[in-house]
Formats: sequence, structure tokens, C-alpha cells
Amino acid sequence: MTERKIMLAVIGRDGKIDDEVKKICYNIGRDIAKAKCILICGGMNGVMEGACRGASENGGLTIGILPTGNKDDANKYVQISIATGIGFARNAVITSAADGIIAINGKHGTLSEIGFALGYDKPVVLVNGSKGICDDLDFSKAKFENLYKSDAEDAVNLCLNLIKKSVVK
Amino acid sequence: MTERKIMLAVIGRDGKIDDEVKKICYNIGRDIAKAKCILICGGMNGVMEGACRGASENGGLTIGILPTGNKDDANKYVQISIATGIGFARNAVITSAADGIIAINGKHGTLSEIGFALGYDKPVVLVNGSKGICDDLDFSKAKFENLYKSDAEDAVNLCLNLIKKSVVK
Amino acid sequence: MTERKIMLAVIGRDGKIDDEVKKICYNIGRDIAKAKCILICGGMNGVMEGACRGASENGGLTIGILPTGNKDDANKYVQISIATGIGFARNAVITSAADGIIAINGKHGTLSEIGFALGYDKPVVLVNGSKGICDDLDFSKAKFENLYKSDAEDAVNLCLNLIKKSVVK
Amino acid sequence: MTERKIMLAVIGRDGKIDDEVKKICYNIGRDIAKAKCILICGGMNGVMEGACRGASENGGLTIGILPTGNKDDANKYVQISIATGIGFARNAVITSAADGIIAINGKHGTLSEIGFALGYDKPVVLVNGSKGICDDLDFSKAKFENLYKSDAEDAVNLCLNLIKKSVVK
Repeated sequence: MTERKIMLAVIGRDGKIDDEVKKICYNIGRDIAKAKCILICGGMNGVMEGACRGASENGGLTIGILPTGNKDDANKYVQISIATGIGFARNAVITSAADGIIAINGKHGTLSEIGFALGYDKPVVLVNGSKGICDDLDFSKAKFENLYKSDAEDAVNLCLNLIKKSVVK
Repeated sequence: MTERKIMLAVIGRDGKIDDEVKKICYNIGRDIAKAKCILICGGMNGVMEGACRGASENGGLTIGILPTGNKDDANKYVQISIATGIGFARNAVITSAADGIIAINGKHGTLSEIGFALGYDKPVVLVNGSKGICDDLDFSKAKFENLYKSDAEDAVNLCLNLIKKSVVK
Repeated sequence: MTERKIMLAVIGRDGKIDDEVKKICYNIGRDIAKAKCILICGGMNGVMEGACRGASENGGLTIGILPTGNKDDANKYVQISIATGIGFARNAVITSAADGIIAINGKHGTLSEIGFALGYDKPVVLVNGSKGICDDLDFSKAKFENLYKSDAEDAVNLCLNLIKKSVVK
Repeated sequence: MTERKIMLAVIGRDGKIDDEVKKICYNIGRDIAKAKCILICGGMNGVMEGACRGASENGGLTIGILPTGNKDDANKYVQISIATGIGFARNAVITSAADGIIAINGKHGTLSEIGFALGYDKPVVLVNGSKGICDDLDFSKAKFENLYKSDAEDAVNLCLNLIKKSVVK
């Protein structure tokens, strides 16, 4: 039996994202691949596609947990497409399955995933400068124990370190 | 066939809440009952119990959508206990089923429900002064179209007006 | 607090059913209402509509757990429409929430619900002569402990007795 | 982008299975791997473990869609463990995600999955001589369009041919 790899979720908005955000997504996907982790996400476009591309083009494995029941709804960089058919309740599945979560940009769906991830006691890293709710929501007063902020270049490392710590405790 | 009543979700933290928050919950539950609406919630304790008590003691109907498969896990003011067995993915069900959502206090689970509700295009009213994420998260920069803040005494009315508007558009 | 009523699920096919099956559905819905139980079902047409009509027209309460996110997709005899948005995974919710299950006619969806109900250790009563899988599948060799067959006029009573027994053990 | 592989679900009972059934499971898992398909299953023991072992030891990829939120609940031959946290509603996810389904042995959970698979219009192959509901339920009168029976050595090929046909139509 092969040791199971760490699974990192990338969460963030579907739809159009600008080039600056796209680059962040790509780089984080790439860093996940280089760290020999599996990238899990919602399988759609926008942030998810950008990150899957980065991972996929750097030898990583990408999993998309789709809301629909059609596996071809996944973006083309999703290698393993799990067409759940359970709608946005799949947000609960993504965060339950991941060992750690990295949020880039993000709208309401991302908000639901951050909520779930914190509820499941998983470390969540919000990427600074990625716009959307990562920049626009001020979580500091809410003092969520497992919520962190990081620049893009450190996000994967930070998330991996937090996972290791949570395994120890 | 009876016309179906409007269903309002009350979302907020499980576990202990202080007397001030309890009173807010009770009053909002009572206002929901007086407005002849059905109260739907996660069925657990804390905010959910407080609101169910307010509705239940004022002639209202209360529905609890439980994470577990045991209907007796509901608080005692839940009249109809739907033991889903799907864990916290039931947060997606509550917000999908409701016509409008009122958030009181709240932690991570509430965050996931706010995210879902906005994704489902339902009006969400955060109650001022109810502590938790309602007071501690500053959503103003994120500019969510269907997210509103209100004092406790106006929350139910505001939510009902927003539902009516969204039906018109 | 009011004592919570027993919740009986009626499961069976969506779509067109003939008059003979319709009558069975109506009568079982009526018997559920007369037994002061709540009828829970998938909220759609066919068997579900027939049973909801029987319950609704005899003073009973009817709950529909819909696959879609639109509460108006329920048949008109559903009084409380829970629009889950989780697709057919809602079959797991119906059977988890019910205290006992009565199957009338039925196709594949009904099969999934019988499977879940047995997995959740709930009594399941298949109605003789209601066609569909109730008549066409021979379960006798499989020896499922909680699976029973009954004529329509005894189905609700049998189910209630089985629920009482299971509470005792 | 790599072309996505066909995903075959193996469904069947959790818990102890005898050596004869174990061998069937192993061989079907092996055949799935040799056909360059991905094996998806519920990730638990019994039939699922046997099939994952066969696939895993023959160079295949195995995915487990767990009911719990703990990825270590998977059997040791599951390479990608998706800990959904949604309980047995995950049976809907497995069958929605798969292109075709092979049932070995089986109890109530398997019944729910057969029901879902047929509802999702996926081909289902029951393995002759594998005991459980595959041998004990007589589906012949129910005339489900996508339900087939096969000996173990032909099951994977039959399922693949049925998938190809359904793509054409």
C-alpha cells in the first residue's frame, strides 16, 4: 500500500478572474504539486481552473468535486472528476476531505467552505492580495483559531506546517 | 390545499449563549410566529433553541434540520425534527429550504450558512448586537447584494420585505 | 412542548400512476392522518402526490423533501415543502428522518430508499398489489430483517406496530 | 490535459466476506486496473477492500468515497480517500460519479446504490454467484433497462461495453 498523500483544497470563486489572480492560482497549484500533495477543489472555473492548471502542468494530481452529476462539467485541468449530483452541499465534502484549505479571492461559496473548514477543525489560509473575500472580509475580530493569512508564495508551506502541527496535538 | 407559509431560517451558534443573546433569539422566534411564518433551523441548542422556544410558545411552527440521524437530538422546542444523517451538509439544506435567513450571533457553521444563503440568492439579515460573527465580521467591503444588518426588533419585518421584493423581481 | 408525532414515509414512483394505485396511495395517506402521524415523502408527483392528498384531505400534515432547490416543485398537497437542493441524495434524508416507511409501487428511486431504510434499521412495509417493485421484486430470499409485506388496508397499522416494537428492543 | 479515464464503481457489502467472494472481488478489481479504468467505491471493508486490493496490486488507481469525515477510515488499498462526512448519502455520490457500476454480493447499502445508479441511467452489472443480493434478489420481473447479470470473469468487459453503447445513444 502506498502512503496516502496530503490533500490540499483550493477554494475560490467560479467564473472570470483577472490575470493577477490567475497567476496566484497557478502558482499555488504548482506549489501544491511540487510539495507532492493532491489538489482537491470544486472542479469548476475561475480560481479552481487556475489552480488545477498550475498543479496539472507541474506533475500534480487534481481532483474536482462537482456540484452537478456530469463529470464533463469539470474544467479541463481536473484529472479526477467526481460528479456528486448533490449541488452546493458538495462544499461540505471538499472541506471534509481536505487536510488543509487555501482560499484565493472568493465569494459566497468560498465563505461557506471557510465556515465548514473551520467547523471541521482544518487549517485555512487566506491568500493576501487575491481580492474577493480574502481581501474584503476582516476576520480579525472573530478570532477563528484555525484561520490564517499569508502571501501567495508562502501559503502552501504555511498550510502544510499547520497540518503537521494539528496532527501532533 | 392550504397556501404554503413563508419559511424563515434562524441561524446561529450551537452551545451556550448568554441571557442577552437568548432574549434576542426568543423575540425573533416570537416575531416569526406572530408573522404566521414557519421557523426552520438546525434544530440544535444555543441560538436555535432560543428561537424555537420563542416561536413555539407563541403559537408558531418550528422545524429542525438535524445533522444526525436521531430525531431526539433536537432541542425540545423543535416540533418537526428532520434527522437528516448527512452531517453539516445539512447547512446547505436549511438555507436552500428557507425563503429568508436571520443570523443571530454565530460561529463557523453560521458562516457556512450565510455563504450558502447568499449563493442561493436568499435575503440574509444579520442581527446587530447579537455578538459572534454578526458583530465581529465586517462584511461591508465585500458588498454582498442580499446581506443586510438590522436591530433585533426589526429583523423579521425587514426579512419579510426583502422576500417580497425578491419575488417581484 | 408538544410531544413529537410519529413520522411515516410514503415512498414510490414519481410520474403517472393508474387509478387503482392512486386509490391505494390516497387510502394510505388518509390512514396516516387518522393515526395522527406526519406523512413525509419526496414531495413529487405520482405515489407521493396521491398519498399527500389522502393525508391532507383528512386533516393530516404532509412534508415533502424535494431534490430541487425550488419549493414550488412540490405537489400541491405538500404542506411543508423542504427544497433541499441536494438532488436524489435527499432519498437518504427522507428515510433517515422517518420512523417507518411504507412503499407503494415504486421504481429505482424507491429501491434506493428501501435500501437506506433497511440500513437505518427502520421498518419497511411493501404494499401488496401496488405494482412496480413492490410486486415485481421478490425479496423473500434476501431475508431482510425489517422488510414486511402487507395489504393496503393494514399497512399503516403494521408499520406503527413495528415502530413500537423497535422502540422497545 | 490527460484524457480522463473511465470510472467504474464496485459496490457490495461492508464487513466480513468469505474467501470465494474475496476472490471475485480481487479479480474484478484487477480487471478494472488492467482495463486502465479507475475504481471508485465506498472505501470501507468487505467487497470494497477486496476489489481495491485487486486494483491496487495490479497498478490501478482506487478511490474511496467514505461516509465519515476521517480519511483514515478507508481500507488500506484505497489510494485516494474522500472523507465526505455526509453519511450514507455518499452512496448517491459514488453512483453519480461512476460511469458504470459492478455489484458483488451486497446488502441494503448495495440496494440503495443499485437504485441510484439506475436512476442516474448508468449500467449496472450484478455478478452471478457472488451471493448477497446479487444472487438473492430476483430483478427479472422488474425489467430495469440498465440492469445486467454476468459471471465474474466477464463483468468488467460487459460494463465497459454498456458504457460505450450509452455514450453512442
